[in-house]
Amino acid sequence: MSPSPDSALGTYLEARKKIVDEALERYLPGEDNYPAVIFKAFRYSLFGGGKRIRPILCLASAEAVGGSIEATLPVACALELIHTYSLIHDDLPAMDDDDYRRGRPTSHKVFGEDMAILAGDALLTEAFRLMSDTKLMRNVAPERLLSVICDVAEAAGYFGMVAGQVVDVQSEGKTVDKKVLDFIHTRKTGAMIVVAVKAGAVLANAGEDEINALTSYGRDIGLVFQIADDILNVEGDRKLMGKETGSDSKRGKVTYPGMLGLPASRKEAAALVESAVSAIKQFDHRAEPLRLIARYIVERKL
Amino acid sequence: MSPSPDSALGTYLEARKKIVDEALERYLPGEDNYPAVIFKAFRYSLFGGGKRIRPILCLASAEAVGGSIEATLPVACALELIHTYSLIHDDLPAMDDDDYRRGRPTSHKVFGEDMAILAGDALLTEAFRLMSDTKLMRNVAPERLLSVICDVAEAAGYFGMVAGQVVDVQSEGKTVDKKVLDFIHTRKTGAMIVVAVKAGAVLANAGEDEINALTSYGRDIGLVFQIADDILNVEGDRKLMGKETGSDSKRGKVTYPGMLGLPASRKEAAALVESAVSAIKQFDHRAEPLRLIARYIVERKL
Repeated sequence: MSPSPDSALGTYLEARKKIVDEALERYLPGEDNYPAVIFKAFRYSLFGGGKRIRPILCLASAEAVGGSIEATLPVACALELIHTYSLIHDDLPAMDDDDYRRGRPTSHKVFGEDMAILAGDALLTEAFRLMSDTKLMRNVAPERLLSVICDVAEAAGYFGMVAGQVVDVQSEGKTVDKKVLDFIHTRKTGAMIVVAVKAGAVLANAGEDEINALTSYGRDIGLVFQIADDILNVEGDRKLMGKETGSDSKRGKVTYPGMLGLPASRKEAAALVESAVSAIKQFDHRAEPLRLIARYIVERKL
Repeated sequence: MSPSPDSALGTYLEARKKIVDEALERYLPGEDNYPAVIFKAFRYSLFGGGKRIRPILCLASAEAVGGSIEATLPVACALELIHTYSLIHDDLPAMDDDDYRRGRPTSHKVFGEDMAILAGDALLTEAFRLMSDTKLMRNVAPERLLSVICDVAEAAGYFGMVAGQVVDVQSEGKTVDKKVLDFIHTRKTGAMIVVAVKAGAVLANAGEDEINALTSYGRDIGLVFQIADDILNVEGDRKLMGKETGSDSKRGKVTYPGMLGLPASRKEAAALVESAVSAIKQFDHRAEPLRLIARYIVERKL
């Protein structure tokens, strides 16, 4: 996501990304640990150009209800670790078999399949270590923290992201209906977006109504992200995407544009953005970044 | 581990294994969920004949300091999920490339590499969901639970089990010294054994001295487990082990017997057992199962 750097959203995203990147450096071990290869491997992918969308959504959600960035950061960073692990494993030869990600060779091309599997495992595990580190999370009530950890695990597991990936892999080259496509999208990308927004609210001590409104916002934009990704995969420019465009259709992947056509896909995305913005209409100016992010997703050129 | 079923230890292990198996069934989803393959795959490995040693050690540790089984069970089960995930991933073609485990085809032989990777990912994730489920863990102080989750994640991650597997994979076919061998053993098997024993004590509200004594016990027997496994790999009978014996040396894996010889390996194991039993000598009769387990490890024929 790269809006004009001098726009209000561009400034906000840049500032939050910097906070997240610095926190990841502060929380996580360097390459000088033993065995070096695993630390090199996880850092190669984690610091490989991610836009930190999930952590930023988590922080923006906390800020929207008056929460502090500091108390939200470890969980926000953990979401990026989980996202990164999922990309490393998805790219493996046995899965999507991708050689490039963000314009660089994928983890298994650089470190070998064994180390890529282990780097993914380590990132997933470290995400939970980070969230349960009470020294870092001392300003959050332990009960709230436990409920966030439970939500994140559910979103990442076999009822969430893993389920989405399973059905995605199984659907390759097959004709699937919109119900299956929606299942893939709400699980594979959507679940972690929703939990990012919800976790920010819970950590910021939001009330139930606020949490529900933000969760609803998260559900809408989670789906928009995937539709926008699908559209970019059809339309995008290879250099900007850092991988072959049109690769989804070549591989027989089901996509929104492939099923509904581009105009209907764009229309569905626009309707979801309005729904997302409407869900948080009672929030004050502190929710403005969330509104700008929702509107920007459909306009972006990655 | 199968001592005579009518011995004191045999009765104890059988009863605890039953409790763990029933809890795993109660806590975890059945095969009737969608997409079925991921639920079938995780259950195939999880209910594939595991002896539940880590959960039993966790329960036995809690019982040794007067804790309840019920309050310990979700964490005990989570340890078995993590153990199972590590076996599925270790068996993958890119790792140890094993076709059999416990006398049955490995996960990737049955479900394919992609589903085996995802089943492992799902089990690891579900372990953390289970531990943070406050409905199940309502009798444990949230602060204690968070510290257990953090300990488990550390033991499973890139400073623990993953580090052990990385060095193990890297050492195949190479000459390594005892320092490296000890690193592999203390991380790959030892770390999760230690945290099983420690977590049981923490969940049971043990004091610091008790936790330290039990952690020391765990460190000793963790190493004994690995030495005993190595010895069995050299000596064991194919039918009893459910996989080719001697496979470690064929593959160029470093082992205790390979490095020190069988007699010295047995001597080291025996010394560690005495050290383990001595570490918990101040505990009363409720620690008897832990003492019996320690003594049994070196005598077992799997």
